[in-house]
Amino acid sequence: MKNLIPADDLLSNNKVECAIDEVTEINRSEHIIATGNGTMFKYGKLILATGSNPVVPPIPGIEKKNIFAIKKDVAYLQDLIGKLDKVNDLCIVECGFIGVEIAEECRRRRPELNISIVEMLSHCLQLVYDEEFCMNAEKVLKEQNINLLLDEKVDAFLGGDTVEKVRLSSGKEIKADMLIIGIGTAANIGLAEKADLEIGPTKGIQVNRYMQTSDNDIFACGDCAEKVSFFYGKPSNLKMASISTMEARIAGANLFSIRRVNMGVIGVYSTVLGGNAFAAAGLTSSQAIAKGYSVITGESEAVNRHPGCMPGGANLKVRLVFEAGTGIILGGQITGATSAGELINAVSACINKRMTADDIATFQTGTHPALTASPISYQLVNAAENAIGSIYIYIYIYIGETEKYYI
Amino acid sequence: MKNLIPADDLLSNNKVECAIDEVTEINRSEHIIATGNGTMFKYGKLILATGSNPVVPPIPGIEKKNIFAIKKDVAYLQDLIGKLDKVNDLCIVECGFIGVEIAEECRRRRPELNISIVEMLSHCLQLVYDEEFCMNAEKVLKEQNINLLLDEKVDAFLGGDTVEKVRLSSGKEIKADMLIIGIGTAANIGLAEKADLEIGPTKGIQVNRYMQTSDNDIFACGDCAEKVSFFYGKPSNLKMASISTMEARIAGANLFSIRRVNMGVIGVYSTVLGGNAFAAAGLTSSQAIAKGYSVITGESEAVNRHPGCMPGGANLKVRLVFEAGTGIILGGQITGATSAGELINAVSACINKRMTADDIATFQTGTHPALTASPISYQLVNAAENAIGSIYIYIYIYIGETEKYYI
Repeated sequence: MKNLIPADDLLSNNKVECAIDEVTEINRSEHIIATGNGTMFKYGKLILATGSNPVVPPIPGIEKKNIFAIKKDVAYLQDLIGKLDKVNDLCIVECGFIGVEIAEECRRRRPELNISIVEMLSHCLQLVYDEEFCMNAEKVLKEQNINLLLDEKVDAFLGGDTVEKVRLSSGKEIKADMLIIGIGTAANIGLAEKADLEIGPTKGIQVNRYMQTSDNDIFACGDCAEKVSFFYGKPSNLKMASISTMEARIAGANLFSIRRVNMGVIGVYSTVLGGNAFAAAGLTSSQAIAKGYSVITGESEAVNRHPGCMPGGANLKVRLVFEAGTGIILGGQITGATSAGELINAVSACINKRMTADDIATFQTGTHPALTASPISYQLVNAAENAIGSIYIYIYIYIGETEKYYI
Repeated sequence: MKNLIPADDLLSNNKVECAIDEVTEINRSEHIIATGNGTMFKYGKLILATGSNPVVPPIPGIEKKNIFAIKKDVAYLQDLIGKLDKVNDLCIVECGFIGVEIAEECRRRRPELNISIVEMLSHCLQLVYDEEFCMNAEKVLKEQNINLLLDEKVDAFLGGDTVEKVRLSSGKEIKADMLIIGIGTAANIGLAEKADLEIGPTKGIQVNRYMQTSDNDIFACGDCAEKVSFFYGKPSNLKMASISTMEARIAGANLFSIRRVNMGVIGVYSTVLGGNAFAAAGLTSSQAIAKGYSVITGESEAVNRHPGCMPGGANLKVRLVFEAGTGIILGGQITGATSAGELINAVSACINKRMTADDIATFQTGTHPALTASPISYQLVNAAENAIGSIYIYIYIYIGETEKYYI
């Protein structure tokens, strides 16, 4: 409980009245909401921040005991932890950020527990990293004696009242007296649907770039709101706390006159695995290629101190993904030192302003022996520089000067 | 010696021939340089990277023994360290980054040494930080028993052959059997002057935004080259390794056809004092005001973990400086956790693309419990948000809507 973020003071200090109750209906024509306790509230503007719930897949046996999702519910999570301390074989379904972090936390808590992760894709964290980075993460998990079952789907949960085994699509069966499912979340749109607000293609509450729903007096933000990609402007499934808070700041600013625009979701992630940071922003090479981009990547790796023997030094590798024709950055991936947690936000700033590889290679960075790599081996800049030769060759061949090239 | 950055391999791996010799003359019409050893080299394009030398002020007694500058010369620095181990009273002249870092290193090496710093401005690090941050740095120095003499100038070095005392402008005399002078550097322009290349107003080799000197076939970059401010476009005295490497990347790219533009120097700094990082980019409030900007600042402070009790957590405070009318960022200052070393480069990216407070408040950042503050207390974003109210009031009063305001 001590880990909950305290918000009550923040609200009362800012003279925000807070009613703990469930909104059951929105009367749009009267601008009134009704709650479960029978209270009515008049509104001028309304913000829906109803969040999301973990997806629980309709797999046979899903109703058995000891199968958990990751709900934002303290009592539920305390029950989960209580069970975790008594089981022998934990199986985690899906190896995205949630799966990976849960696996590591469970290993820390129960060094002797059998832990497996079932992932339908070929690599863990594949939606966020290119292959090499995924394989680094897999190495960390294997070193912690976590069993990875890749390219596998769960066909059924077997057992009596309580789960005992998992049957996989390959036919393989594995022992599991507890399951944690981390396959993503679905927007809570019940209230919005009931109020006849438009729902978007990924089943979020449809919003415009100002966070207004199909009713101009009702805004939606966070996991419950439909999203579009910053890059290609089409619907995106991303749901993250950092996106939610950004959308909240836009919705709040726009309530009474439009002031801010949502440029779409980039997706900026970071985590720590086996003491190494893994951070990413934007599109991976393979995602970008799948979306039809021509892609050029650049990499740079160095210790985050100079000279490298300085105390506290750790390796830091940056990989940047660029659109080949324009040289504009599409994404970045970083592993190594924990300063990656802030460096990825420098990458995100570059993405946000659609910097080119030349912009990044010549943007002024600060360095210090005890804090970063040296100015000549600074990874962000050098990864951009590393890509530039290829970008110029690409432009030379495909865009501008085909004839000269073939003389 | 082990701390020298190895460059020989980098050169030979890239098939760059390296001659260790001193260039004594440039024959521009013949495109030939001559060296001290009597060799002649023909050039198509030439890059001058002659660097700078520490400024040695013409103060009476400057010729006495045990008065050192910070030269990039291994033997000289080894002599300095040798002397340092034998003296009792060290006095450092000027309390900029060099002075502060030297003081702390000397304290680490000689816990019992008397150390004083003489600074002509009212605060240490005043050219880089606003008052509160300067005072934090001063507190760290005082805790390390370093004696700060602010608002003081050196009038004379007293003693026999070897320095014994320093007389200050206030008339005060302090004991000092060793001096280290860190009052900045002057560009090495001798060779360029001899070749009749144009010299700029701060006595650097004049270059255009492509790093070309007044001779299109000769480029200059680094400490020897004249600089302009990114902000107000006028001459700047800044000389830093990270600026030099940026300029080198521009000069190199432009040698045979113009490809990159130097947008001017921002000035991005970081250091560590008493275990706390101090980082800064761009203009301080007082610098900006002195240049005629109307300034609004925003601040945010939080532990760089969430919840704050996570292991490895440290406080991190961000202060951002905005131009009041446009809301465009002019600078940022960060103290606290070492991740400031990378976070300041996110600030620099924001400055580089002239982001507004609204841009920064809504730019998508990644956060993680073990790496950063939470998405609702992320310092960079919240410092921008903190400034926005004042920016809107400023615009309301001074720019758009004066009449309404006075109704």
